[in-house]
Amino acid sequence: MNILLVPDSFKNSLTAQEVCESLTKGLLKADSTFNIVEMPLADGGEGTLEVLVKATGGKIVEVETRDPLQRTIHAPIGILGDGETAVVEMAKASGIELLEEYEKNPLLATTFGTGMLIEGALDHGCKKIILGIGGSATNDGGAGAASALGARLYDVQGIDITEGAAALHFLDHIDLEDFDARIKDTEFIVACDVVNPLCGENGATYVYGPQKGARPEMLDLLEKALQNYSSVLTKTFGKDYSDELGAGAAGGLGAGAMAFLGAEMKSGFSVVCEYAGLADAIAKADVVITGEGKIDSQTSSGKVVAGVAAIAKKNGPKVIAIGGTVADGAYSLYENGVEAIVPIVNKPMSLDEAIENGSKLVENTGELIGRLLNIK
Amino acid sequence: MNILLVPDSFKNSLTAQEVCESLTKGLLKADSTFNIVEMPLADGGEGTLEVLVKATGGKIVEVETRDPLQRTIHAPIGILGDGETAVVEMAKASGIELLEEYEKNPLLATTFGTGMLIEGALDHGCKKIILGIGGSATNDGGAGAASALGARLYDVQGIDITEGAAALHFLDHIDLEDFDARIKDTEFIVACDVVNPLCGENGATYVYGPQKGARPEMLDLLEKALQNYSSVLTKTFGKDYSDELGAGAAGGLGAGAMAFLGAEMKSGFSVVCEYAGLADAIAKADVVITGEGKIDSQTSSGKVVAGVAAIAKKNGPKVIAIGGTVADGAYSLYENGVEAIVPIVNKPMSLDEAIENGSKLVENTGELIGRLLNIK
Repeated sequence: MNILLVPDSFKNSLTAQEVCESLTKGLLKADSTFNIVEMPLADGGEGTLEVLVKATGGKIVEVETRDPLQRTIHAPIGILGDGETAVVEMAKASGIELLEEYEKNPLLATTFGTGMLIEGALDHGCKKIILGIGGSATNDGGAGAASALGARLYDVQGIDITEGAAALHFLDHIDLEDFDARIKDTEFIVACDVVNPLCGENGATYVYGPQKGARPEMLDLLEKALQNYSSVLTKTFGKDYSDELGAGAAGGLGAGAMAFLGAEMKSGFSVVCEYAGLADAIAKADVVITGEGKIDSQTSSGKVVAGVAAIAKKNGPKVIAIGGTVADGAYSLYENGVEAIVPIVNKPMSLDEAIENGSKLVENTGELIGRLLNIK
Repeated sequence: MNILLVPDSFKNSLTAQEVCESLTKGLLKADSTFNIVEMPLADGGEGTLEVLVKATGGKIVEVETRDPLQRTIHAPIGILGDGETAVVEMAKASGIELLEEYEKNPLLATTFGTGMLIEGALDHGCKKIILGIGGSATNDGGAGAASALGARLYDVQGIDITEGAAALHFLDHIDLEDFDARIKDTEFIVACDVVNPLCGENGATYVYGPQKGARPEMLDLLEKALQNYSSVLTKTFGKDYSDELGAGAAGGLGAGAMAFLGAEMKSGFSVVCEYAGLADAIAKADVVITGEGKIDSQTSSGKVVAGVAAIAKKNGPKVIAIGGTVADGAYSLYENGVEAIVPIVNKPMSLDEAIENGSKLVENTGELIGRLLNIK
């Protein structure tokens, strides 16, 4: 039996790669003749870089860059197996996870480091750059990234504004004379499942600002800064990107990427699928096992489990999903191509206990699935 | 596909019958063509009466009897489908569950009511009586039951002793002149998985006394009473039953049943198997689903899941076990005829939450199993 493993990570517990390893261990305990192919997945967010590098036989390269508060750090970029496609995760340089709780401040945080990662990819000769933009600490509309790539952002007196969203209040015009010339010959794809506009009630600031450390009194300030930024972008590029799908993703980096980089916005999972060759792998499998830390009613939109099921549904193999938490709403996936949802917990336990024992629980679940597949 | 459901109850959550009903509901959601046979089981303890009545198409009859403190109550006895075999559960009259916490006192508690239940079965013309003896509140060696059936228990002055273990101190001799004559023509089987002797360190008093409300200072008193009772039994019946397997079961009711009733001691599960016709049912099934509230390393001895697996192992169908809690030790059952162990919990949750949602969780698990059985 050919079994394809295509899980997402189990957040706070196991990477997608670790989920694969534990599943394989359990499945082989049930039946050592299973032919197992591991293809850890991601939805365009955390882990996308590693997943695409592994799937394409590429490599990871360390680049010097800056964190959201401009401190020098080293961060990885992925060079895919074709040697000319790069994967850049903004969170590796400009992510909220890089900051201590007390450091979170979207007025100051900048995407400058993300620009440096992109530059690193260009320096490696990449002609296509996939930009993953989940988990940002920033609300600067990608202005920092643009400035790292050579754009000059001036105030009304022609003085460079400083980094961070607050300074966008004073942005008056943008000079692209020194903007990296390689960019216009490079294809940019943003892996993004956020559809919020740049500004307004449903925009970057009011929806995502609070989780980046914006206190209530900061929100109007941040919103006004982005509005000003948006009008300068429109003036500069002759097009208003602020209401495009995903413009408000990652603190407005979505809009910035469209404007400065000519980036195309694509669903994160579809990008991963395409570059990992998921459809081909599914076509060769008898059974597909996918999974996520939490499977719920939201799983049916844009996430790995639902995505895998949708591909397999067209004449494909049966899909089994495993999950750390299987919420009641999850069972709607039974109507959407998932054949069985198997929870990994094996007794009443706390979330912490489940997270801590993730590896063993997934292994047991792999063995269980293998044993049940062998009945009849 | 012929699926046989043979679960035990899920303690504090679902009766074996309810487990069957939820499993069936879920299985039929997965595949309405499944041919399902429900045979709720028990291990000789709680629920055995209902299980055997259902399995044989018998009936339940209410009998007037007494609780451990001699208050009049009504309790059920089971008349099996053959019309001449009765099932009597001592816990229905002399069980610890019948007492409030402050009423528990093994010095006073009596098995008199159990004797009345047996009398009820005799009055119904039964020629064979299966006696389930789990969950007792008593430590009287079955003296109360014997007296309900007509035995006279005298002190050295020829005065009737009172009910309860304490009075056994004063027991001097037993008069069987008025003992129910039907008993010698009746076959008694005690369903029992306790191997403790009547007296001593591993006997009824020291091992089980504390859970019946015996405070430390009572224990020596209770032990001495049973020792005296034992010596009078030996004198009366010309045989010492005190070290027979199960003599110490149910506060010594095991020894009393052997002496007064000529009872044969049998493993509870084997009694249930035999009268429910489990082996035949298993032989006709393609897949067997069993289960218990908690599956652990102790499950392999004398309990329903291990028993079902042992029967099915000999050329039988594959056995799937479900459990509310699947402890690490449970997986040793994979070497003992259980093909797959499926936990019912579907996310991190407390024991209370699992118990409260038992019905829905078992239904989901039934659907999951049905779906997995239909893959390939």
